[in-house]
Amino acid sequence: MKISMHQASAPRFANALRNLSSVLDKAQAWADAKKLDAAVPGGLRLIADMFPLARQVQIACDTAKGAVARLAGVEIPKHEDTETTIAELKARIAKTLDFIQSVSAAKIDGSEEREVVLKMRSGEVKFNGLQYLMGHAYPNFYFHCTTAYNILRANGVELGKRDFIGTP
Amino acid sequence: MKISMHQASAPRFANALRNLSSVLDKAQAWADAKKLDAAVPGGLRLIADMFPLARQVQIACDTAKGAVARLAGVEIPKHEDTETTIAELKARIAKTLDFIQSVSAAKIDGSEEREVVLKMRSGEVKFNGLQYLMGHAYPNFYFHCTTAYNILRANGVELGKRDFIGTP
Repeated sequence: MKISMHQASAPRFANALRNLSSVLDKAQAWADAKKLDAAVPGGLRLIADMFPLARQVQIACDTAKGAVARLAGVEIPKHEDTETTIAELKARIAKTLDFIQSVSAAKIDGSEEREVVLKMRSGEVKFNGLQYLMGHAYPNFYFHCTTAYNILRANGVELGKRDFIGTP
Repeated sequence: MKISMHQASAPRFANALRNLSSVLDKAQAWADAKKLDAAVPGGLRLIADMFPLARQVQIACDTAKGAVARLAGVEIPKHEDTETTIAELKARIAKTLDFIQSVSAAKIDGSEEREVVLKMRSGEVKFNGLQYLMGHAYPNFYFHCTTAYNILRANGVELGKRDFIGTP
């Protein structure tokens, strides 16, 4: 028995996105308690020249949907980056989950050697499916999920690692 | 063709740990330029009640070596948490890499269904190998690698996502 590309991708992204959505619930409760303007949490940053919370969530979503679509060889759904409130960011996660779960395991399986081409600022980069998933998509995805958590945590939202990990 | 448990674990942890070591090189150059006391960088935090940089690096290392050892069914090497300087944290990463790379692929392969028991504060938690690797070890590992990066980035070290991702 070995791991299939589906097992290693869609359900793992989905699990972490659901945890991120729960983290945002705690952020909402915190913002409500402090009577913050609805646009404040999404604009929080760790430092001036890093992306704010809203962008971290958007990129986490885009990394997950891009990975699932590229591995499956289907078109990446376009989601506009218009979210400013926590409710909108949770809706962004929900539609990302809908897409991820709509792609059949059969389409993703067998993509270990499939060529994946990414357009970077530095030009095109070619990966095989496994290298792309494990060496690019995963670290990027978790980077942005963790940074979203860290932004909230550093601003005083009461979060613990259990919120981030959820139920494996 | 499917992914083996070795492909999904040891080389991925090793790659991210090498990137983390390079991130620490930039932190060292920054600390040198600012003539910081050698113990300052390791003590930096995002907020008072989160672990400092040194502990983030130690936990990232422990998560990687724990995952590789548990999947392979070998004893987890004990590394004391004594590091206070960046040079010592880089040495901690190096000895973690040595261990990870010393475990043969054959020992790790086939561990998808192997029972892994973790002793948590809440009691024992049982996983199968796949669920443990993908749902527990990965998100924990990347959480601490990212938080180490974020601590340095939020303190002004000039880092970009490319330093974190390295070469997949």
